[in-house]
Amino acid sequence: MTRNWELKVQEKKKHLLQAIPPEWRIENAKQSMISAGFSNTRHYLNSMLPAKEVAITNMTVCQLQNDIKQGAKTAYEVCYSFCHRAAIAHQILNCCIEIFFDQALKRASDLDEYFKQTGEIVGPLHGIPISLKDQLNLPGIDTTIGYVSYAGNPSKSKSLLAQVLEEKGAVFYVKTTVPMAMMAPETESNLHGYTYNAINHEFSSGGSSGGEGALIAAGGSPLGIGTDIGGSIRIPASFQGLYALRPSHGRITYMGVANSYLGQEVIPSVIGPLATCLGDIELFMKIIVGSHTWEQDPKVVPMEWRDVSSLKAEKLRFGIMWTDGLITPHPPITRALRETVEVLKKAGHEVVEWKFPYQKDVLELAEKVFGADRGKEIFEMCKISGEPIAECIKPLVDFDADDDGTHPNVIDVTKWWELGEKKSFLREKFLEYWLHTSKETSDSQPIDAILCPVWPTAGFKKGESRYAAVNYTAQFNVLDLTSVILPVTTVMPESDLPISNFTPMTALDELIQSYYDPEYFDRMPVCIQVACRRLEEEKAIAVASVVEQLLET
Amino acid sequence: MTRNWELKVQEKKKHLLQAIPPEWRIENAKQSMISAGFSNTRHYLNSMLPAKEVAITNMTVCQLQNDIKQGAKTAYEVCYSFCHRAAIAHQILNCCIEIFFDQALKRASDLDEYFKQTGEIVGPLHGIPISLKDQLNLPGIDTTIGYVSYAGNPSKSKSLLAQVLEEKGAVFYVKTTVPMAMMAPETESNLHGYTYNAINHEFSSGGSSGGEGALIAAGGSPLGIGTDIGGSIRIPASFQGLYALRPSHGRITYMGVANSYLGQEVIPSVIGPLATCLGDIELFMKIIVGSHTWEQDPKVVPMEWRDVSSLKAEKLRFGIMWTDGLITPHPPITRALRETVEVLKKAGHEVVEWKFPYQKDVLELAEKVFGADRGKEIFEMCKISGEPIAECIKPLVDFDADDDGTHPNVIDVTKWWELGEKKSFLREKFLEYWLHTSKETSDSQPIDAILCPVWPTAGFKKGESRYAAVNYTAQFNVLDLTSVILPVTTVMPESDLPISNFTPMTALDELIQSYYDPEYFDRMPVCIQVACRRLEEEKAIAVASVVEQLLET
Repeated sequence: MTRNWELKVQEKKKHLLQAIPPEWRIENAKQSMISAGFSNTRHYLNSMLPAKEVAITNMTVCQLQNDIKQGAKTAYEVCYSFCHRAAIAHQILNCCIEIFFDQALKRASDLDEYFKQTGEIVGPLHGIPISLKDQLNLPGIDTTIGYVSYAGNPSKSKSLLAQVLEEKGAVFYVKTTVPMAMMAPETESNLHGYTYNAINHEFSSGGSSGGEGALIAAGGSPLGIGTDIGGSIRIPASFQGLYALRPSHGRITYMGVANSYLGQEVIPSVIGPLATCLGDIELFMKIIVGSHTWEQDPKVVPMEWRDVSSLKAEKLRFGIMWTDGLITPHPPITRALRETVEVLKKAGHEVVEWKFPYQKDVLELAEKVFGADRGKEIFEMCKISGEPIAECIKPLVDFDADDDGTHPNVIDVTKWWELGEKKSFLREKFLEYWLHTSKETSDSQPIDAILCPVWPTAGFKKGESRYAAVNYTAQFNVLDLTSVILPVTTVMPESDLPISNFTPMTALDELIQSYYDPEYFDRMPVCIQVACRRLEEEKAIAVASVVEQLLET
Repeated sequence: MTRNWELKVQEKKKHLLQAIPPEWRIENAKQSMISAGFSNTRHYLNSMLPAKEVAITNMTVCQLQNDIKQGAKTAYEVCYSFCHRAAIAHQILNCCIEIFFDQALKRASDLDEYFKQTGEIVGPLHGIPISLKDQLNLPGIDTTIGYVSYAGNPSKSKSLLAQVLEEKGAVFYVKTTVPMAMMAPETESNLHGYTYNAINHEFSSGGSSGGEGALIAAGGSPLGIGTDIGGSIRIPASFQGLYALRPSHGRITYMGVANSYLGQEVIPSVIGPLATCLGDIELFMKIIVGSHTWEQDPKVVPMEWRDVSSLKAEKLRFGIMWTDGLITPHPPITRALRETVEVLKKAGHEVVEWKFPYQKDVLELAEKVFGADRGKEIFEMCKISGEPIAECIKPLVDFDADDDGTHPNVIDVTKWWELGEKKSFLREKFLEYWLHTSKETSDSQPIDAILCPVWPTAGFKKGESRYAAVNYTAQFNVLDLTSVILPVTTVMPESDLPISNFTPMTALDELIQSYYDPEYFDRMPVCIQVACRRLEEEKAIAVASVVEQLLET
């Protein structure tokens, strides 16, 4: 007997397939790619799509913006190219949960018409396709955040960020997959199954913005919106070699965006961009901050985008965090950091060791905060539809169905306040340590940024999330730093040999290091984090751009 | 039998008295004032202190700053004058909990020596005495926050704000009284008894920064630091005709300041100045914001002090909140608002009605947040010393001593998150309504500020807190607005007649209005609030200054 929730899933999948024009539907898309000798979806799509579409979908937002403004490209052809590519990418990777190409192409035509009539663009994003994680609300379209029970209830409202992007000319055409509740570093739900990695289809796309990561890396979107509570923007970016930013809380509007654990303010989720170049990340930030959303969203800090360009000519100081003392990164990750440090030093910048003494407390706090309700919300959301709890978030759910209120498995408010106070304490200690680095630098100035891994490994394959550890991402959620994800290299089996005589620090450290096999991760991307202090988004991007230029030369 | 906590109180009182030089001690100080025909402590002190000291202690911070810088006054004579005046004010009003004149006079001498040697001041507050609410930590001095159990345990650390003020040249000499736990609009604790009003000794000084309000209004301090979670800066300022600012959360550093309910982040307490003129409030803010405390305190927003002086030449738009629809202000309060509206209109500014539809929800939320632990912390703090729960905060304590963990009188974290989410909802609705005022104004611009009462009455007398209502203050804690307290008038029995044919909206409304008797409140000060949006401290001060200038002309 097919259960009710399964019927809803079938319905959802049917709708999604029907939203793809028949001429773009492919039977066994993934198998076709493999048969054609590809494991990298971007490469495969570049090889099989029309040349004109390939050219368009390999452009950055800045390039598209320019071409559209000059009249060299129409919004329609840009939209059409990304829709087509997204349709096929989705059939391979399973990265979209909502597809509405008709609406998008109509909007693109309207924009072209406006341009034709007036000679003007409606805004700096005129005709730019932007993909949205399935938390952003668009009227008439479901927002499920990975739960079956939310399927089939189209939103009535529009998230403020979507509204601003649209006012600036953006075109929406897809919403992307998320794991149930967005609380996992991989992307799987009963609604859509597993989302695969665009660089290597056997790997996980990461999570929770896994649909975004896969779609953008496949070339199906030039820029997408993700969210991050423990690494959810940065993990998919890192697993797929993308650029991304985790802004501080309060810099980018989250208003009207669906979420788990509404009202959980100790470690709040933040919203930010993923893209294929740093310039696009900066463009997005400038446009959104310049939109003064603080006039509508009380959580946004009323702070203009600041000019920090003079930084680029200065000597910079970096703190290097080779390891957090708990999980040793795999050799390619350490090499990426080493190469970065080398080019920085060669260019006259300074690098000092970063060893924050409260690192372990930071992680323990994240665990306590994310586990404060023992998974009660997830448990109850699943009860509504009858769907089983998704595999990837099972570790979070320790809630007792038979709880009658006397079993204190959900913590009380006074315990919660202790966690809030612990967070403040750790943030204070962190700044103290940051300022303390002035004792280590030659000019007695504190560091400008931290360099560290994003993830201890270059991703993991489906079913292998036991090798996952959010150590390097979740720290910055607890501390609310701004962190740029910068692609540095790819795994090179010939030079990235396993650590000889490895002495593990913990059982998990041992397990994760045992997962390293150079061939297994061959050519997987390796990114690093360039992190600045709270609300220093401008600086984090500027510093990352200095690092990038040195790495490129 | 004298109980242990009573011994501690006796000890504390003895120390406090001993800290006053014998020549400044007065038997029955209050009775002496009354016998001399005074009820206003400022007037009395002006009449009985040496003329030179009266002149100094009636100067503003800006004036003192100038005189010290020019060498026209020494830091020592300024400090001496304020110490002397504070000593007597305290003996009348019971407004200090810590006195350390020796330390202060030594520091003032050192500053004079520095000035003599170098011809320079150490900073913009060189030699300015500043009083601190008994939450700020100074090494070697108790911080009790109104609890007996904290008495006799000198602090080891210094609050960051105190550190910055000191670096800028300020001199500390007293800490001022607070009600137990700082959760009351009047100031009383087992440690020090009741703090009276400096304008009329029969009245309450307000709370929880009641010691500050009384001391500054008596002329015993030119500027003091208070905190505000439901009106605690604004109530004492209003009851005593002072200027004050409730900044938004994150503008002024609260780091290293003792507090109740640490980690309660839904409606956080904020810290700010009380003074005798608006210029001093602005000076304080400029100095502190300019100190970049965000480099040490992770809660401070990294935002420079912004120049909004051009505002002063512009046409402004105001929302007038005559009533919150729950408690009708007494006639003198309404007259203060009416007079303000009249001068504004006459000067070409625009005033529209402000009637936020969610006003009641805002207050209900504050009540739920402040009652979330049912007074558990207060209950347990009292249990440590054995002291009884202070009368003024008894309404907050509904905690069951026999609770074994199964009685859910403390809410759980999921309920707490609901309150956090409700707060966000109300703040969003508030901004929506604020922007909506553009539909009411002649130039389609939203309002610049709200004008409203601080308190429905011009204070209350000891034992009459049943007539208290935080309706007009707590709203801005929930909404995190910036609010300036502006003295407008005093109660004038001849013109402020009781409302005829009053129709109460609620039982409390009826009770509070029945409390009005023009003679009873004769000459008590009446202040209003000038409130701007979150993190608009610069604007709130600039707008208040426009209002003040018009009221003065």
